Amino acid sequence: MQKIKSREKKLRMQLQCPMPKLDFDVITLGHGSGGLLTNKLLDSGVFDLLSNPILDTRHDGAFLELEGKTAFSTDSFLVSPIFFPGGNIGELAVNGTVNDLAMCGAIPKYLSLSFIIEEGLKVLEFWEVLVAVKFACEKAGVHVVTGDTKVVEKGKGDKIFINTSGIGKVHSKANISASNIKKGDKIIISGQVATHGMAIMSVREGLEFDSEIQSDTTNLNHTIISLLDQFGESIHLLTDPTRGGVATVLKETAQSIDLGIDIFQKDIPIDDQVASACELLGLDPLYVANEGLFIAFVAEEVAEDFLSELREDGNGLHAKIIGTVTEQHPRQVILESAIGGKRVVSMLPGEQLPRIC
Amino acid sequence: MQKIKSREKKLRMQLQCPMPKLDFDVITLGHGSGGLLTNKLLDSGVFDLLSNPILDTRHDGAFLELEGKTAFSTDSFLVSPIFFPGGNIGELAVNGTVNDLAMCGAIPKYLSLSFIIEEGLKVLEFWEVLVAVKFACEKAGVHVVTGDTKVVEKGKGDKIFINTSGIGKVHSKANISASNIKKGDKIIISGQVATHGMAIMSVREGLEFDSEIQSDTTNLNHTIISLLDQFGESIHLLTDPTRGGVATVLKETAQSIDLGIDIFQKDIPIDDQVASACELLGLDPLYVANEGLFIAFVAEEVAEDFLSELREDGNGLHAKIIGTVTEQHPRQVILESAIGGKRVVSMLPGEQLPRIC
Repeated sequence: MQKIKSREKKLRMQLQCPMPKLDFDVITLGHGSGGLLTNKLLDSGVFDLLSNPILDTRHDGAFLELEGKTAFSTDSFLVSPIFFPGGNIGELAVNGTVNDLAMCGAIPKYLSLSFIIEEGLKVLEFWEVLVAVKFACEKAGVHVVTGDTKVVEKGKGDKIFINTSGIGKVHSKANISASNIKKGDKIIISGQVATHGMAIMSVREGLEFDSEIQSDTTNLNHTIISLLDQFGESIHLLTDPTRGGVATVLKETAQSIDLGIDIFQKDIPIDDQVASACELLGLDPLYVANEGLFIAFVAEEVAEDFLSELREDGNGLHAKIIGTVTEQHPRQVILESAIGGKRVVSMLPGEQLPRIC
Repeated sequence: MQKIKSREKKLRMQLQCPMPKLDFDVITLGHGSGGLLTNKLLDSGVFDLLSNPILDTRHDGAFLELEGKTAFSTDSFLVSPIFFPGGNIGELAVNGTVNDLAMCGAIPKYLSLSFIIEEGLKVLEFWEVLVAVKFACEKAGVHVVTGDTKVVEKGKGDKIFINTSGIGKVHSKANISASNIKKGDKIIISGQVATHGMAIMSVREGLEFDSEIQSDTTNLNHTIISLLDQFGESIHLLTDPTRGGVATVLKETAQSIDLGIDIFQKDIPIDDQVASACELLGLDPLYVANEGLFIAFVAEEVAEDFLSELREDGNGLHAKIIGTVTEQHPRQVILESAIGGKRVVSMLPGEQLPRIC
């Protein structure tokens, strides 16, 4: 009880104004009925919290003014547990779709937000998720313009699933496509691998380290836009190695072009504690899911400048060139290990860490 | 076994070409890993089935060319059972978002498609849903351009949930907003109420009638566009009475304007068998969820012409004027019963039929 009170207090402090009207304790099936209780839930502060002129019309859909090349993306989030070190499912759902749009070279603008809630979810938890959504939207500069709330019976869901879909305006200098990748392109990673996955796993497995491993979930759009401003079409491909990890994304990319990829294990940045956690659990960090991380394929001639620029950004402090595109071994990814051995990298074969995002 | 064989045969007949490669029987957690099995699932025919130039690029998001006023909508679908008389969750998910866009006066163009699958779902069932998605898209003239596939552990979901989000171009003559509603506007319903809800309930409750009650799920966009061509701004509001039924939608509308609504029970169209089913289950048909149905608020002077035109359309054979907007009793909906009594109509108070869409 004390714990709930303190979480509620924290929530109220974060929120300042508007405050939610927390006059019911748990979400019930009626809150997904589309009737009075759905209205009551939304009017308890959801609309106030996410308020913007487009959402406020409260129609079946949102009206937007769009022009030119637009990116559109969708993602459903089912992370378990919904609260984890460094974040919760709310900001993950915003950042995930914001980043998918950024990987298209787009400036994210509008999000839809759709909840599938398991009956019995504490309203306090729902509000913590919502507040995280709000702050993540503000940070990324996007607006929730339309949404949906559904409730399933106890045992037919798991606390809360969130789908976000997003719309963004493609940057005028962006031309992102695997088909632009050329021999000699450098492969740059923006930061340390496996952090998000190990933050989730350390909670699930009850691992304890000197300091807690925090998820790196964040929005990458401002970073990407600034790189596009400067390097434009020299950025050939952007991709975020979420589920399946760095290995799967590189293998998928290699398969979609008629070129090969060489990567060097010694250059792949990883936090010491994350590396220990991976070792302890017998996981290869190259297959572990990441969140606030991206991989760029950039033209050889701008690679060093791109790297310097990225390292100036808070999201790129640990950025490194980890590999090169080659004409050798087309459609294959070859990893040179720390001791100089070589091995073929394949996709994640089964399921390593379910419900990681 | 015989039953599965015959379902598979039916599926193969529906599909002609391309055929799915059904070489695994159930969906496992690995199919949601983002790794090899996810790729295998998608390559088993999902991409082929829904193929279009935008989807085929297989990037993190889709690239679209848009211009001018655009509508954007989202909806998650959790109907149980996923197969029901008259359809399955696949076409429901397409039609639901297509219709939300149509209710904005928009021409639906692009959909995202996001699956949350419970581990153990039969691949055959997944394919039946996908085929329904394909045909519903073709009928509505929309394309799936981006998607997501996630899998949750057995007991943490229920077979399959689907989120669709959609983008449409607002019709040049459309100006749909509750704020346009005026005193004297006629309220027109496009067809019989409570059909979808009772189709689902009759399966759940094992009710048997002379003939099976079939869901009326369908796409309304072609009907709406043709009405907008002709009646343009005289159509003040379009809304589809899905969850919460006709009563909830009318009450929500009345609350959002400073006017009242009178409706007449004798004019509300309902199929005899559906009416019997409602009576048997003690349900008020005005609160039962509908699918292929819409309500239009139209200027008094065009109402009769609008009705005649709508009745020429396959989706409007049973259309009726069911009410009027009045200055009396602002924010209230008053129903005149078949025998002349009057009662105030409120929103659906609790949950009547969970998981109806």
